[in-house]
Amino acid sequence: MRTIRVKLDKRSYDIVIGTDIIPLLGKYIKKLDIGNSAYIITNTYVKERCSRGLIRELKKSGLNFKIKVIPDTEKSKSIPVLTAVINDLAKFDLKKRVFIIALGGGVVGDLSGLVASIYKRGIPYIQIPTTLLAQVDSAIGGKTAVDLKEGKNLIGAIYQPRLVLSDCCLLKSLDIRQLRAGLAEVIKYGIIKDSRLFTYLEREYRNILKLKVLALERIVRSSSLIKADIVGRDEREAKGIRTALNFGHTLAHAIEAAFSFKKYNHGEAVALGMLIALDISQSLKLINSSLNKRVESLIKKAGLPTKIESIRLNELMQAFYRDKKFSGAKNRLVLITGLGKVKIVENVPLEIIEKALKNRIKQPSVLRRAG
Amino acid sequence: MRTIRVKLDKRSYDIVIGTDIIPLLGKYIKKLDIGNSAYIITNTYVKERCSRGLIRELKKSGLNFKIKVIPDTEKSKSIPVLTAVINDLAKFDLKKRVFIIALGGGVVGDLSGLVASIYKRGIPYIQIPTTLLAQVDSAIGGKTAVDLKEGKNLIGAIYQPRLVLSDCCLLKSLDIRQLRAGLAEVIKYGIIKDSRLFTYLEREYRNILKLKVLALERIVRSSSLIKADIVGRDEREAKGIRTALNFGHTLAHAIEAAFSFKKYNHGEAVALGMLIALDISQSLKLINSSLNKRVESLIKKAGLPTKIESIRLNELMQAFYRDKKFSGAKNRLVLITGLGKVKIVENVPLEIIEKALKNRIKQPSVLRRAG
Repeated sequence: MRTIRVKLDKRSYDIVIGTDIIPLLGKYIKKLDIGNSAYIITNTYVKERCSRGLIRELKKSGLNFKIKVIPDTEKSKSIPVLTAVINDLAKFDLKKRVFIIALGGGVVGDLSGLVASIYKRGIPYIQIPTTLLAQVDSAIGGKTAVDLKEGKNLIGAIYQPRLVLSDCCLLKSLDIRQLRAGLAEVIKYGIIKDSRLFTYLEREYRNILKLKVLALERIVRSSSLIKADIVGRDEREAKGIRTALNFGHTLAHAIEAAFSFKKYNHGEAVALGMLIALDISQSLKLINSSLNKRVESLIKKAGLPTKIESIRLNELMQAFYRDKKFSGAKNRLVLITGLGKVKIVENVPLEIIEKALKNRIKQPSVLRRAG
Repeated sequence: MRTIRVKLDKRSYDIVIGTDIIPLLGKYIKKLDIGNSAYIITNTYVKERCSRGLIRELKKSGLNFKIKVIPDTEKSKSIPVLTAVINDLAKFDLKKRVFIIALGGGVVGDLSGLVASIYKRGIPYIQIPTTLLAQVDSAIGGKTAVDLKEGKNLIGAIYQPRLVLSDCCLLKSLDIRQLRAGLAEVIKYGIIKDSRLFTYLEREYRNILKLKVLALERIVRSSSLIKADIVGRDEREAKGIRTALNFGHTLAHAIEAAFSFKKYNHGEAVALGMLIALDISQSLKLINSSLNKRVESLIKKAGLPTKIESIRLNELMQAFYRDKKFSGAKNRLVLITGLGKVKIVENVPLEIIEKALKNRIKQPSVLRRAG
């Protein structure tokens, strides 16, 4: 077991990483003195597979609780679901000292954090992430959000949890595609900050894909350390430090959006986005081709895509421009100058971005058999 | 014109108080560098009476703007209206640097602040309060909220504006009942913090009720100074300092709720709540009867109620217990030990609270003519 502190003065909190650590939850809740009534937000899939131990522990600790199940889809990150959850919570919370437990992946975590941040102007919440993506990324750092028709994560708050409990046992419920999506973020940490993590991944990817607990703990630990450090130094992305975490993400968002969020999940799009960012870094002579090839090889081994399915370049570029982080014709990309080293570059020439995108698009097969 | 600074480190902001100061807005927006597109939230009543100067100024300053009108009722502090406003804002905000202007009273201000706090994880907003209550109280301090069926202000955030512009000209649109409601809060400041303000009110209440601009400016200034100081020292009501502002309010909430928020507006209930808190202070021998009588006399002169309409004591006590600030049988009241001096007292004996409430209830007329 390993505890990592996210240092944010009075809002500091622990990330506890280990195997079979749900039975410690009662003690943490008592120590944090956050209340006697847990409102658990989860989804059907996770409830079936991951809630038993949690319920046992809450009962043993003599805590009231209620489980609220939301649909297991990105659509749960919406104002109607947010409203339904808040109304249900208000009914449960009668003269209780209530806190929230987010048991699930990024959708559950983002929604639960937002509920916690605006209910009674802020109540405590605990993240118990059940996906690799959530354990290494979304459960840490307090970014909470729901989507609007006009764009993803348009409604939200920065509101830190009081505890993140990352139990690697919970990852056994993951299907392989979700696992790979999480792995894309771990690869990202390796590229931007931790060359040892990167070489570990190159060596141990098979054990990770086989869900070996030791390997999972190792990568969750390293990733959480990096994220905790960055969040502690730049919580609100005001100093350009947290920006490094966006490596591959700006291009990933464009790819996700261009395929209407149907073709690629976030991790897959991040894998593609990172490769394109590396292509751009190479075009700008920030790196030579060997790092690019090494990353591409690891991404392949992780079972993540290295080419974008056939699409018109225009559609990708339009999605790129719609990104909420841009205004006018400016762009700002996180690029790489070496393994573990990032550089934020503004106004990358459009030809270079277009060329990099184009080279990553699969060419359509030239001939189709007549029907 | 007078500028008062709310000191909250990086989130500090100015309250500008004066007469006919809307024409200064463009300069402030430019100086604050908060964007080029104003999304104005207001209601029908205020739009008709108070928006002309604002629109002229925004046009003159070359800013984009859109006016969003919400219904002129407490019901606008609801999740459906919040959702409608956010969706509309997202449509307006296309590649713009948008900020919000709240033009109205407490309802507009509370809703607008919440929209600003959760849209894109926080965008800037400016308060232009148009009621006395909002100028002296709700527009300052960043408390934002909407109501749920289960209770008022259950959804919200503490999110500070970037500027409060209190133009006393705008108060000319007030009807007398709203003016009196605001005056109740000004009387509160006098009682808890500023004996000179209190004696000023005793002397000048007629000019205030006649909406004389000099008198209005004087009381808005003194009240804003007190509120700004308290918010600067205890933004989140964590140190017991901001608690002083709740003088009369816990009992006021019970009175408002007992009459289903129909009989008394907030200021009227605060007037009654303050008198009851003074009665309790007297019962506990914290003050003698002379201060109590002086306050009662001023409240009468202000045209505010000094007795609660006929109601059963039980109903009041039940409403008192339902207050979100209590858990279990504990209570916590802001009491007075002299003009300008508060004392927070926990677990006031119930008999004393009941007696004080009972003595403030109008006795029903004994006989009714047979119909």
